[in-house]
Amino acid sequence: MTWPASTPPPPYYAVIFTSLRSEAEDGYAQTAQRMEELAAGRRGFLGIESVREGAQGITLSYWTDLEAIREWKADLEHAEAQRLGRERWYERYSVRVARVERAYDFG
Amino acid sequence: MTWPASTPPPPYYAVIFTSLRSEAEDGYAQTAQRMEELAAGRRGFLGIESVREGAQGITLSYWTDLEAIREWKADLEHAEAQRLGRERWYERYSVRVARVERAYDFG
Repeated sequence: MTWPASTPPPPYYAVIFTSLRSEAEDGYAQTAQRMEELAAGRRGFLGIESVREGAQGITLSYWTDLEAIREWKADLEHAEAQRLGRERWYERYSVRVARVERAYDFG
Repeated sequence: MTWPASTPPPPYYAVIFTSLRSEAEDGYAQTAQRMEELAAGRRGFLGIESVREGAQGITLSYWTDLEAIREWKADLEHAEAQRLGRERWYERYSVRVARVERAYDFG
């Protein structure tokens, strides 16, 4: 995986997931890794960037279009992970869906 | 500062800054903190979320409009920090400017 993620020229979409973790660990790491793998296999997936510092985390996933994001959100295994996330792993989170209009790189 | 950042209902804009740090530390922490303070004082600023894990970092800043982002990018002190960033502190980075179209929170 490259860092920063290599993405095509805009426009495309970003899902900005900003989270505050709870103390609960049971199954979190495995599920997080599984969700990254599942997402990466879906139509429209362009890349992912994820960082955690203590309880605070940001995961950015990039997609070709809004329909691909809707499909990923509705994926049954992902929906179950979202439910467990609200029940166990996250105290709070925000999801923002954004259209990337401009992008530039250094290095 | 709240986490996740408290932002108004969409639409608004996000600047997604994904970076890979170099080993150089000289002045980085002070400048990063100063830039957060400067940004927070500018017209159109809505919030900021920043996380680093080893060399990999993501900083999200939220703005009311593209013109506010342009003004912040062109700020003289910020422009000098960007120059130092390319010269010293970052091996690579990506900047993506995105229009937040939908957002929802849990918790």
